[in-house]
Parts: sequence; structure tokens; C-alpha cells
Amino acid sequence: MKKTIYADNAATTQLDTDAYEAMKPFMTECYANASQPYSFSKKAKEALKDARATIAECINAEPDEIIFTSGGTESNNWVIKESALNDYYYRATITSTIEHHSILYSCEAIERLKYPVAYIRPNRFGVIEPNVLNDFLSDKTRLVSLMFANNEIGSIQPIKDLCKLAHSKGALFHTDAVQAIGHIPIDVKKLDVDMLSASAHKFNGPKGIGFLYCKEKCLQPFHDGGAQEFKMRAGTENVAAIVGMAVALKKNIANITTNSEKLRKISSIFINELNRHNIDFIINGDPVNRLPGNINISIMGRDGESILHMLDLQGICISTGSACDSLNQQISHVIKSIDVPEEYAKGTIRISFGVNNTEQDAIDIASIIDHTLNL
Amino acid sequence: MKKTIYADNAATTQLDTDAYEAMKPFMTECYANASQPYSFSKKAKEALKDARATIAECINAEPDEIIFTSGGTESNNWVIKESALNDYYYRATITSTIEHHSILYSCEAIERLKYPVAYIRPNRFGVIEPNVLNDFLSDKTRLVSLMFANNEIGSIQPIKDLCKLAHSKGALFHTDAVQAIGHIPIDVKKLDVDMLSASAHKFNGPKGIGFLYCKEKCLQPFHDGGAQEFKMRAGTENVAAIVGMAVALKKNIANITTNSEKLRKISSIFINELNRHNIDFIINGDPVNRLPGNINISIMGRDGESILHMLDLQGICISTGSACDSLNQQISHVIKSIDVPEEYAKGTIRISFGVNNTEQDAIDIASIIDHTLNL
Repeated sequence: MKKTIYADNAATTQLDTDAYEAMKPFMTECYANASQPYSFSKKAKEALKDARATIAECINAEPDEIIFTSGGTESNNWVIKESALNDYYYRATITSTIEHHSILYSCEAIERLKYPVAYIRPNRFGVIEPNVLNDFLSDKTRLVSLMFANNEIGSIQPIKDLCKLAHSKGALFHTDAVQAIGHIPIDVKKLDVDMLSASAHKFNGPKGIGFLYCKEKCLQPFHDGGAQEFKMRAGTENVAAIVGMAVALKKNIANITTNSEKLRKISSIFINELNRHNIDFIINGDPVNRLPGNINISIMGRDGESILHMLDLQGICISTGSACDSLNQQISHVIKSIDVPEEYAKGTIRISFGVNNTEQDAIDIASIIDHTLNL
Repeated sequence: MKKTIYADNAATTQLDTDAYEAMKPFMTECYANASQPYSFSKKAKEALKDARATIAECINAEPDEIIFTSGGTESNNWVIKESALNDYYYRATITSTIEHHSILYSCEAIERLKYPVAYIRPNRFGVIEPNVLNDFLSDKTRLVSLMFANNEIGSIQPIKDLCKLAHSKGALFHTDAVQAIGHIPIDVKKLDVDMLSASAHKFNGPKGIGFLYCKEKCLQPFHDGGAQEFKMRAGTENVAAIVGMAVALKKNIANITTNSEKLRKISSIFINELNRHNIDFIINGDPVNRLPGNINISIMGRDGESILHMLDLQGICISTGSACDSLNQQISHVIKSIDVPEEYAKGTIRISFGVNNTEQDAIDIASIIDHTLNL
């Protein structure tokens, strides 16, 4: 069997071995329900408390501002649908056309209930310009939700400026930081965001766990029930996964400069190799302010899906620009939003390097892409 | 340190060792995102498919009727809040006064949005009588949600009859089976229920995972986003936890008769021992149709919280009848609903035996309760 080169770290990452080790006791002997009052629950309770403090420290938040959820999708649905579930008098939500589907489809859900949503288009680099947001804002705006870094094209948004503008009109500001956290530094106090979504499996934590940073309890619950998570998110605490998430995030943050430099170098080698092979492609997203491991390219006159499958035959895992839909092969909403020329758009692929990738991986993938295109 | 006797299996259970072993590959080498199209995702994809088929078989459902969620709380919130999130023209929900808080507080949430909810009181055994449901039903009823077996007092409801009545008025029927599944046989086809909630950690599966059985897609999504779970529940699949849940449920179902007999015997020994010690107590819940490991008793003139803490000092883990609220010690909504005499109600404790308990545990706990009451 061929060696697998995994370069789809924006889809999911390998669980960090230290995170895995830290999870084990809570999947074996320390199985108590962390919300019960007896001594046998003490270890689980303390582990929860420590994990919350660790995660808070990683983004310069307070521990009671961290609410554990089942992942980024839940966090995003919560923030958007709260408008409808708590009847905010039909005040408006502003978001962008390049958000993740967990934001966009949640917005569609509240639009069906007649809650107004406005969608900002980014510039051609996939960046939401503050002056454009300013045109959308009014004193009727309840919430602005804009992603920290785009999952497809890697562009990083000017969150601090966007947030400041939202606040100037009295609106709350949420950012979907699922792709950003653990990969670029985030300080919620400096940014002044009210809410931030995160998912552990995007930063070498386990699947099925994430969190919502939430300043001063500016939300009502989405999952009602037990008194867990400061009565903000009911459900028996998934202690093992929470512990694993904290270990993974702390480790990623501790190594964030080294990892970024490594990933930028691998990415740069990859682009140089594509050029060396004389491939006709364009790079999508912001050329400077972008996620260090993300590369999104559109190849002239080609089909992204076919390239993906050809690379798969060689043991290489990458993604297309589009959410895969085998029945209806479409150009993704993000690629459409940044006006990639039609002759390139269909040939879009995303390579997302992670901490386990090497420079040789970049050379190998570029070489196999070239080989594939010449078949 | 004292030996721990864990008798709080209604709160959570120990993860089954086979389930844990089955989870490991999906927390290590098989870390792929199950929704990606390349070969590296194949094992995760197949494991998901197998787990879905296994779980479906355990309750006589079809695989595409099983939708994985983060647990019972999410499943219950989904079923109740769907009324409001999908604007069912303000048709009514009927539930009972003894449901889990994830049902009751979700109902309160939709009531705040002016969706009508009616609450049925059970009889003194904690059973919802079909003729009482009949009085509540009308052609304006959208949904009837009644729990399969009560988490505090163990009473099993006549689900088949209740469901038939709901259907006779064109209403959907949901049952919160979190405490029942894996402990008593459930056949969704025979019962004809439309929806059923389950949580893995109540049947020796991992925490943070559960499912909603949903017949013929009678719901709209609660978590919108990616196309996972037949486009019914978005979010990257928690493959390891799903695999663990399937192994645990299959094992529990395979041993359900043996386990039930064992638990009924342990429970019976426990009650006999309490009587032998001349303790003045009453047994709450249905004397016959009850969960095999659940015992809920109210002790005359005593305080449940104090007993819990005294037992904790002896290494014994049990629960009180109430959801623990250290600030405001209350009699639980379930105990109130079944009219336990006041002089007994405050002295309510729940002992929930599981497959790892022994007959000696029952003898020891009864003896230590007796000792505690005589201090």
C-alpha cells in the first residue's frame, strides 16, 4: 500500500498523543459524572476546572467565559439561532457570503422565521472590508457574525476593526474561529469580541468537542436542561474530550510561532514547486494575511474533483474548494464570492498542511499534481 | 482509602472495556474526517455505517432512522424546539410533569415564544395513564413527548398505548428513552414511536454521544451546516464515540435478560436488607413496571442530602431524588408530582445499580444507611 500523505488538516487533524494520553483516565477509572456531589466525582470536576482555565488562558479569556459545546457547528448554530429562540424582536443579523455552512444555513433557518439577515460580500482576496460592514450596520443590528479565517481560502479577517464598528452601533460581535484558533494568536480581550466559536479537532484535539467563548453571558442557552456549564449548556460533561482539547490547544499555542514558520515554509515550497512545474494556476485568498498551512489554488481548465481523485490514487489527501456533493458538482460559495475567473474556478483544490507535514510532502504533492495534469 | 461502591448508574456508567478498545483506532491512526471522499476516510466511513446498522438493529429500526447527536440533552432539545425553529403554526406540545429537565426547560423555552405546552401529571406510581393523555389530546396537538422510564423513580410508561392515542389524533410521538435503552427491550416498530432519544453514557458507552431515532425524517435539522447524518445533524462525525456507543449498546442488549435478572435480584436484596434493619421508608415509582437497577426510596423524617454526604464518607456513591442545588435544597419535581407525603419527601435517595454491582454491594449499602440513620 502507498504511503499516505495527509494534507487536509483544515478538514480534521490527527489527535495529539499527549492529548490522547490525558484523556485515557477519564475513559477508564475516572468515569464519574462531573456534576455529582460525592468524592468520586472530584477528579473529573477538577479536570474540568483545569481544562477551562487552560483554554481561557490560551485566548486571554476568563474561565467562566468558556462554555464547552459539541463543536464548532453547535457553537455557530447557538449564536445565530438564539435570535429566533429568544425572540429578539426581529433585529437584524449581519454575516458574510463566505461563512461556513453552519453559519449560513443557521441564518437561512432564522430567515424562514422572518428574522432579517444581511450578507456582506468580501473583496477579491476574500476579506470583509470594514467600510463595507459600516454601510450595512444600523441601530437595528443585533449581531454581526464574521469568521476569523476562512476554511477554504485561508484569508484572515480584520476582526478587531470589524468588531469595533459593530460595537459602535450597539451590536454584538461573534467570530467563527474554528480554523484560526491554535494556528494564529487570538486575544479576545484585545480583539474585544463578544463570542467566539472553536472546535477541538481542528487543532489536534478530539472530535465531538469544542467551545464557545461568551463574554458576560450575552446569550441564552441553546441546549436547555441540567445546570452544567454555568446553566448555559446542558448535558453531562464530556470530561475526557474536554481534557484532550485543553492539552492540544495549550500545546499548539505554546508552539504557535515555530509551527507557523514551519507551515509557511512548507506552503512556500509547495507554491514554488508548482511554478517550477509550469502549472497555470492562481492562488485564492489574501496573499499576506492568511492561515499559515492553507493553500487554495485554481488550476486553469481543470476539474478539482478529478484532481482530488487522481491524488487519492497516489495516497494523497487534499480537498476541493467545494463542499463535496457527488450529485451536483458545484463551484463553492466562497470561490463564487471572490469572483475567481470561470476558466479557473472549476479547477480549485485546497491543500492544508499541518504540524505533521514535511517539506518533502510539499515537493511530492506538487510533483504528483504535475504528473496528474500531464496524464 | 475506602473502597468505592458506585451505585449511581442512572447518572452515568463506567465505559465498557470492549467499547473502549473499539474506540482506540479512531482516536489514533484512523483520524480521517469521515465525510471526505478519499480512501484514507474509508475506515472511518465504514465504521460509522456499521455502528449505525448495529444501533438500528438493537431497537429494530432502519439504519437511516438513526441520527447521531451529542447526547440525550441535544436529542430532547431538538425534538421540542423544532416547533419553534420551524414555525409549526403554534400547534401544541403535550408532555408530563416528570420529564427530564432537558424536556421541561425546552418546553419552557418554546412557551416563552407563545407555543402552547400542556403538562400531564402522573398517577401516584409515576405512570402517565392513557385515559389522562386522551383528555389532553386534540387535533391541535403537534407532538406528544413522554419519557420511556423515569430517571428518578424508574417507572416505565405504557409507551405503546400512549403512542397509539397520540397517533389517533394525528400527533407525533417522541419518547426520551435515555434511562431505558440498553436496560429494557425496545422495539421501535412494535411501539410505533416517531422519535426516541438516547445517550450512550447511560448504557456503558462514552460520554458526549447519543442518538435520535427519527422515523421517516419527521423533523427539520436543529444543528444546521454540513451534510452529515443525512443532512439532519451537521458537524464532523465523532467516529470514536459512535463506534464505542454501538459496541456498548450491542453488548447490553445481548445480555439484557441476564443483566435485568441480576439487577432485580440485587435491588430485591437491598429492599429486604432495609426492611431487616427496620428502616421506615417508602418505595417510590411503579412497584412492578420499573427499571431493574433503580431504587428510589423516601425515608421518614430524614434529609436526602445529608444521607448522600454521610454515605459519601463511607465511599458510597448514590444520588438524591432532587437535582442537586446546593443553594436551594428542594424536593424534586418528580417527587412532588407523585405526592410523596411531606414527612418522607425530604428523605428521598436514589440508588441505581449497574452491571458492575454485586449482591454484597446491596447488603453493604443498606447496612451503612442503617448505621448512618442511627448516628
